[in-house]
Amino acid sequence: MTNEPQNMTMEKLKKIVESVYNQLDGGEIPAMDIPLRSKKNIEFDPKHNVWKYGDMKTNRNCKTVKGAAMMLRTVHIIDFIDQMIKDNDSSTLREMYYISEGWGYGKFNSQDESNMLVEDLEIVSKFMREDFKLRPEESGANVFGDITVNELNRNGVWKKINCRDDVGKSGYGIPFNVEKDNITIKPGTAKFIIAIETGGMFDRLMQNGFDEKHNALLVHLKGQPARSTRRFIKRLNEELKLPVAVFTDGDPWSFRIFASVAYGAIKTAHISDYLATPTSQFIGITASDILNYSLPTDKLSDKDVAALRSELSDPRFKDEFWVSEIEAMLAMKKKAEQQALAKYGLKFATDNYLPEKLTDLGIL
Amino acid sequence: MTNEPQNMTMEKLKKIVESVYNQLDGGEIPAMDIPLRSKKNIEFDPKHNVWKYGDMKTNRNCKTVKGAAMMLRTVHIIDFIDQMIKDNDSSTLREMYYISEGWGYGKFNSQDESNMLVEDLEIVSKFMREDFKLRPEESGANVFGDITVNELNRNGVWKKINCRDDVGKSGYGIPFNVEKDNITIKPGTAKFIIAIETGGMFDRLMQNGFDEKHNALLVHLKGQPARSTRRFIKRLNEELKLPVAVFTDGDPWSFRIFASVAYGAIKTAHISDYLATPTSQFIGITASDILNYSLPTDKLSDKDVAALRSELSDPRFKDEFWVSEIEAMLAMKKKAEQQALAKYGLKFATDNYLPEKLTDLGIL
Repeated sequence: MTNEPQNMTMEKLKKIVESVYNQLDGGEIPAMDIPLRSKKNIEFDPKHNVWKYGDMKTNRNCKTVKGAAMMLRTVHIIDFIDQMIKDNDSSTLREMYYISEGWGYGKFNSQDESNMLVEDLEIVSKFMREDFKLRPEESGANVFGDITVNELNRNGVWKKINCRDDVGKSGYGIPFNVEKDNITIKPGTAKFIIAIETGGMFDRLMQNGFDEKHNALLVHLKGQPARSTRRFIKRLNEELKLPVAVFTDGDPWSFRIFASVAYGAIKTAHISDYLATPTSQFIGITASDILNYSLPTDKLSDKDVAALRSELSDPRFKDEFWVSEIEAMLAMKKKAEQQALAKYGLKFATDNYLPEKLTDLGIL
Repeated sequence: MTNEPQNMTMEKLKKIVESVYNQLDGGEIPAMDIPLRSKKNIEFDPKHNVWKYGDMKTNRNCKTVKGAAMMLRTVHIIDFIDQMIKDNDSSTLREMYYISEGWGYGKFNSQDESNMLVEDLEIVSKFMREDFKLRPEESGANVFGDITVNELNRNGVWKKINCRDDVGKSGYGIPFNVEKDNITIKPGTAKFIIAIETGGMFDRLMQNGFDEKHNALLVHLKGQPARSTRRFIKRLNEELKLPVAVFTDGDPWSFRIFASVAYGAIKTAHISDYLATPTSQFIGITASDILNYSLPTDKLSDKDVAALRSELSDPRFKDEFWVSEIEAMLAMKKKAEQQALAKYGLKFATDNYLPEKLTDLGIL
């Protein structure tokens, strides 16, 4: 194991501190430019098919007490990251928020504030939170199927785990850091990824042996997927050339889950290149499925309707398939869950619905 | 593997159907008695130190359309369970709800209704949902430390997993069925259990090697713990004689997490004997800790205050320790999270706070 990338992280972060120092030393009021983090500065990059920040900048400076406190916090955080890298430690974003209690004027007022500053550092440094040794509370999702991961444990020893043969029924749990210095991946018989929204459906596919029958790798998204889950899917897609199919409920929020796996999310637009898998295909429940299979439905709420309408102006949904499915759902005023397929019994999803959809998409 | 307990489950369930049949056959309107499932019929059993149902009964009968539909559903569910046991299958509670779409007049109106009926069947049959092959959506928690589980996989093969050496950083995931026909447990060097509310703190203990240094088994509760998590802790406590310490935030909801691990919860009062570990000890954040360690706090909300007040009349909190801590918290009007200990650095929880508390309790 080498500390190469960690040294690079600190080199970059220290340049930020250096710049603050040099400005002060030169009698200037310190300032830094960061990309404007609002919706109007987010662009869909048609070349890479992902969300990205545009060129608009905001200038953060020490002309106000508030601005000076932000700059102080920035320097404190970089010092804290430096210490963690030296100690081979890491911390949750929440722990860092509490640690700032000892930073005097640099103390954060809320965790939103500290989380946001970490994202700013990601944007400015072009390194990731994981490089900073900072992690969220949320745990990653579970994986079941024939691939093998090699994971670096806390004692610096690499441990091989086959995600079908070496794990229990709950599968392999994705850790927060899935970069190459922490995890390497080796192929097995799995030929494609099926990323599943709900735990109930993940268990269903596992129990029905869908992974073995169709050489599939099952990934449980746990609702809106964590960064580590999206990054892990991206690496599997790039390194093992596994196509990705996303299997969700049929409602506007699930469509967004698909879009965040495929094209990235606004909150993480600065790292879409790392997280998004633009070749992902949707095999979740659609308005057409609700009709064709007469699925049990729930009525769209006002919030659902508003979300669907806003998706019609979202560049991630600007193709014929999505426009027609979203309009059909608005017209029928109904949504359905993936487990609604159980109307036709416990094998219908794995023996009928999925094989048909996967064949249509050319994955099976 | 034997089908013995499954046969016993069906024998018991079929007696319920038989009774309905015989009543109809004898020209009677079918009826069944079930314990009244409301707060006033829950008693604290001082002998076993857990919550239990009292003797009040409610009579469910077919004199109304609603009552008849409930009886029809009961029979349908038992038929469905019978089929799953024969097929060696299982289903989520949500899948069963959707499957009832095909039951005509027996169709459920909401999942609350179907969940409740499953609990009724547990109460009447004295078997557990897990015996019925029904499971929740929620997944069990994670375990990290030196014990070894032997888990029956979907192909009927037993698989040994050491919960420290054979797993990744996220630990071993507890499956929904942790009964002996699915999991056996072998001791390792772990000498006690520390059950932890948040993922951030679970990771902290793991990363700081708390399990190795103190021969601890770390269990992540994931907030209010799933049945499988509580049952797994109970089995570890009974079979491996491991004392249980519960490490939570310091607020009324966290106190309830402790109480549900230790004494059972109202919703599962009929199976407290299986789920509760009455010898569990509390090492979470208290009002005294907030004072003694000057922890960062949040103000109690009105809901927090109401919850604390209601705990003062809850028999599970009727000892000197709890009454004085709850009253102190009400007086200071503040609460604190377990990760607030990070105010004193990333090693304070594992090097100071926990060793002190565990020594006081005689566990270390």
